[in-house]
Amino acid sequence: MLVCGSERMHCMKTLTKELWMDVPQRRAIVSIHKEVERLVEESKVSDGLVLVNAMHITASVFINDNESGLHHDYDLWLERLAPFNADPSVYHHNRSGEDNADAHLKRQVMGREVVVAITYGKLHLGPWEHIFYYEFDGKRRKRVLVKIIGE
Amino acid sequence: MLVCGSERMHCMKTLTKELWMDVPQRRAIVSIHKEVERLVEESKVSDGLVLVNAMHITASVFINDNESGLHHDYDLWLERLAPFNADPSVYHHNRSGEDNADAHLKRQVMGREVVVAITYGKLHLGPWEHIFYYEFDGKRRKRVLVKIIGE
Amino acid sequence: MLVCGSERMHCMKTLTKELWMDVPQRRAIVSIHKEVERLVEESKVSDGLVLVNAMHITASVFINDNESGLHHDYDLWLERLAPFNADPSVYHHNRSGEDNADAHLKRQVMGREVVVAITYGKLHLGPWEHIFYYEFDGKRRKRVLVKIIGE
Repeated sequence: MLVCGSERMHCMKTLTKELWMDVPQRRAIVSIHKEVERLVEESKVSDGLVLVNAMHITASVFINDNESGLHHDYDLWLERLAPFNADPSVYHHNRSGEDNADAHLKRQVMGREVVVAITYGKLHLGPWEHIFYYEFDGKRRKRVLVKIIGE
Repeated sequence: MLVCGSERMHCMKTLTKELWMDVPQRRAIVSIHKEVERLVEESKVSDGLVLVNAMHITASVFINDNESGLHHDYDLWLERLAPFNADPSVYHHNRSGEDNADAHLKRQVMGREVVVAITYGKLHLGPWEHIFYYEFDGKRRKRVLVKIIGE
Repeated sequence: MLVCGSERMHCMKTLTKELWMDVPQRRAIVSIHKEVERLVEESKVSDGLVLVNAMHITASVFINDNESGLHHDYDLWLERLAPFNADPSVYHHNRSGEDNADAHLKRQVMGREVVVAITYGKLHLGPWEHIFYYEFDGKRRKRVLVKIIGE
């Protein structure tokens, strides 16, 4: 029989938090790094994983450089890969009265979520890794989920 | 000494299940949402994570809208980004006798896996999040893995 | 009260390891499969998850075929989707003195991380799944993080 808390065997802790976003532009990149950092601290998990995901399907959570030139490049690049077009004959999704089909495509390139390790009670990241929310269809309230699991 | 099951400290439970897929078309989007939901319930995990991944490298698991117009748009868009071409001088992968190089590319855009939080015993998702399997080279049996870990 | 190690309730174990990479080319795909396999064995985790992520933002970890023709196809395809261009008027990121904006874009297509299930003490993978590191801006030392969590 093993008992949690003894030597190398430990028990699970979790923390769950929804972060509300309200981006005034249609598209924008918003840092959520500090907030995730703070929640990891609050969780008291020293060793585990944190999942950070967009709860909406026209937005992404991703990790990359905190550099405005690059963010500009992402925006132009995604617009080239998956251009905005409200015309329902171009994107069938827009037959439903929406105009955001492009946002659903862009989000797949940048991803829905990141999973980050927690070690010694902190986000275990490389020197330039920074956690961002990417809004592709803003001007309304949306949520990001932070789920921490570990010991 | 901490004992599992006391107050805020809990023990781990897991559930592992392979779902068999057999898509009659070459490419198709198939909902696996209900099945994942059912497995989360069966696991009795109230707080944790579920990993859902394609076990094959010409297929994706992704989360987006359960809307047929959008699924049509994904298909056309992916065909534009990574067109089918059986010619082995276009895709070297097809020198191996395969004709599915495009499927390996498309799958990278849509992703291999999703990780979803479980809270209060249920998938913790936003209002429109729906879990899908995306087949890019069908007409044969393939598998999706569901792995649940939590307390 | 539940005690870890009894019947269906178990305690958590973790293992954390950084793998150093030093890729002599600018771009290359490197297998890290054996190393991850070895760490799963070392962790003695029989049921859980392993996170494998690039700690750098111009590199990817991904799962696909161990086939050199396909790797050639990925390279040409990514160069077409996000071409190298050192010109700072093309990519604003390169105004910072860098020439690697394209590497930051390519990495988003291929992804930062994979999460893989561990079952019966082994990576739970489909027949052709193979774990790779993809370097998009090499010729210097970088790291991959392996984080194992389970019971």
